[in-house]
Amino acid sequence: MSAAEPILRVRRHDPDRRARIIDACLGVIAERGVAGTSHRLVAAAADVPLGSMTYHFAGMGELLHEAFSRFAASVSDRFERRMAAARDLPEAKEAVALLITEDVFGTQDDLVLTHELYTLAARDPAYRDLTNAWMRSSRAALERHFDPTTARLVDALIEGLTIHRALDTAPQDPAVVREAIERVTRMAS
Amino acid sequence: MSAAEPILRVRRHDPDRRARIIDACLGVIAERGVAGTSHRLVAAAADVPLGSMTYHFAGMGELLHEAFSRFAASVSDRFERRMAAARDLPEAKEAVALLITEDVFGTQDDLVLTHELYTLAARDPAYRDLTNAWMRSSRAALERHFDPTTARLVDALIEGLTIHRALDTAPQDPAVVREAIERVTRMAS
Repeated sequence: MSAAEPILRVRRHDPDRRARIIDACLGVIAERGVAGTSHRLVAAAADVPLGSMTYHFAGMGELLHEAFSRFAASVSDRFERRMAAARDLPEAKEAVALLITEDVFGTQDDLVLTHELYTLAARDPAYRDLTNAWMRSSRAALERHFDPTTARLVDALIEGLTIHRALDTAPQDPAVVREAIERVTRMAS
Repeated sequence: MSAAEPILRVRRHDPDRRARIIDACLGVIAERGVAGTSHRLVAAAADVPLGSMTYHFAGMGELLHEAFSRFAASVSDRFERRMAAARDLPEAKEAVALLITEDVFGTQDDLVLTHELYTLAARDPAYRDLTNAWMRSSRAALERHFDPTTARLVDALIEGLTIHRALDTAPQDPAVVREAIERVTRMAS
């Protein structure tokens, strides 16, 4: 027992090591892409010994899955807070407009990490549990204010408008965003 | 002159070599991702000597840019044909529904290549000339039937609904797609 104590103490004094490795992994992916991410680079970025990686994660697949899970949860939480703060329908529409024009892809890292995850999920259905959970969370947040069909359409609209803004060379007209929200939140005949 | 003749003859008899390399490059990207694509793999897939790669392309950057340019043009052409075949507004709406439910991401390679391109463009603005040209082409095709604002909204809707269908684990309800098209193609008050 006594020989093991120092090791236990180190762990006890570094309880956030696993979380720190996951955060560091997201930073490495943002910089180098999934394909350029290695145990060695993540360990260096997290400032942990290389052996710590295999202690906490069965392999790169588990680390990537947890990293993107954490990323999706963090973006979802911001989305949920934005929608929860709206007190009525006009505020809910304004919240959606702010999600489109400011929150989603608010940083270059968010933009890159989202597309890295989508590319993984496009190739490997094992990552679609993450994208599915992300969509369910967004729709639930939207259903605070909209019926389920409208929530689905608003969610698709947010996706399309934010991707088109990010990948365009011309700026997006905020009036077009508001017009889009008005149209999809009205019932069809 | 006579010494050069055989080389010239080979080139003359293989006029599609450059196009074949580009097509092979798309196949390699679909299988291994941009990060896993090399001159060696593309040359082998195109069945051309490795030296042929540097003759036709200044480097991997030029080859990737041309490959994704060809991919975007091919997807755009199909989109344009679908919209050009519609003779009135109801047919145009039906064409959009078919684009969403069948054409876009109709193959696994299309899905993967689109997300590989988006990830490149997210990271490197030099690829946004391609994504911008792709969007301009889609919008022009939609403007055969819809005003420019509506064309933008329909284009964003197609993007969002097709991505959400591809990355979801549950099937998409075609009735939701038709409802979405009705809503965005009606003028807001």
